[in-house]
Amino acid sequence: MGIWEDGTPMSEVTKGREVERTGPAVTRRREIAQRAAELFDAAGYYSTSMEDIAESAGLRKPTLYHYFKSKDEILLEIHSEMIELILRRHEERLAAGVESHSQELRGLMGDLIELMETHPGHLRIFFEHQRELPDRYKEAIRARRQRFRGFVFDAIAGGIEAGEFIETDVEMATLAILGMCNWTYQWLRPNQERTAAEVTESFWQFAMRGIAVDPPV
Amino acid sequence: MGIWEDGTPMSEVTKGREVERTGPAVTRRREIAQRAAELFDAAGYYSTSMEDIAESAGLRKPTLYHYFKSKDEILLEIHSEMIELILRRHEERLAAGVESHSQELRGLMGDLIELMETHPGHLRIFFEHQRELPDRYKEAIRARRQRFRGFVFDAIAGGIEAGEFIETDVEMATLAILGMCNWTYQWLRPNQERTAAEVTESFWQFAMRGIAVDPPV
Repeated sequence: MGIWEDGTPMSEVTKGREVERTGPAVTRRREIAQRAAELFDAAGYYSTSMEDIAESAGLRKPTLYHYFKSKDEILLEIHSEMIELILRRHEERLAAGVESHSQELRGLMGDLIELMETHPGHLRIFFEHQRELPDRYKEAIRARRQRFRGFVFDAIAGGIEAGEFIETDVEMATLAILGMCNWTYQWLRPNQERTAAEVTESFWQFAMRGIAVDPPV
Repeated sequence: MGIWEDGTPMSEVTKGREVERTGPAVTRRREIAQRAAELFDAAGYYSTSMEDIAESAGLRKPTLYHYFKSKDEILLEIHSEMIELILRRHEERLAAGVESHSQELRGLMGDLIELMETHPGHLRIFFEHQRELPDRYKEAIRARRQRFRGFVFDAIAGGIEAGEFIETDVEMATLAILGMCNWTYQWLRPNQERTAAEVTESFWQFAMRGIAVDPPV
């Protein structure tokens, strides 16, 4: 595959991202990252070895090293996959056109909260092990988190400009809404009492009452 | 001092808490926990040794062991101190009497957010290293977190009963408000652009619009 020729991980954001999004190697990497995320979540990042990951993924260690050169790289893959997924979703939403800024926010909130169902355990890794990433990876992830935050900020600012939301401190509203949604990683689990969709609806209504000129009832 | 006679840490919640809240040994323990929290926050819990903590606190290692038998115990002290502080504050607030449920919520939100200024770094340790605590400690901390969550829940439920808040899903509103406030540990730092008091005011207004029948303007 020649994936590692230039010495950077496949999931590095800066180059050739599009062509690498599909194909069997990418699928295999995602599967490995999924198993690793489960192990990290259960036993902790530090206590999990490449050996454990290979075993859990049903691979021999040299084969694992063919896909990922280090645990750091797996951690980056876990980070990248999720954040790119929700960035892409919103880009597609914007490209398709949204009917209102409040619907735009509902979409963003839903995408985030839904990760608790589609990527259980990943979010904890994402939030709590960000600082363990090597610096060059950290920067790439930080830029993408800022981009997502920017989406929320823009939706609110756009809503104010359109007269849909009240004049409010956009940054504070952004942080309040992101906080509500992100914090679900601490308590929302798949197949429990409430679904991600229900939580989204409830939080969205709360937030809309918080900022909308004419909140939904 | 005979602190360790029964084999449990001084900060164990179940016994003799009141008498242990003051005195030079307690002050010394808090100072050590403070230095340890800074080290954990900067270098990570795993990478910080008892040796590092002793050095940072200006103690010889045997002296450190006189105060704390393990890193786990220091971690528990960090957890206990903060959560007991905010539990106590609200108990005192309730004992003194609060003028409204909305003011009660303002107090609770302010106490939480203020920790980002008074205990910088501690909150990250608190949220991200809870799972590293030995099980018997975990239970004590979990019970106290639930108690704090109960305070928020009760304030909202009380407000609904009093006709001060709209009929809403109390649990969802509780989790939304706690999420907004807790998430500040990810971005609010002391001596930055916004103070904890400003963030509290902004978030409280957002939340009040979210649930109050007659929100403050």
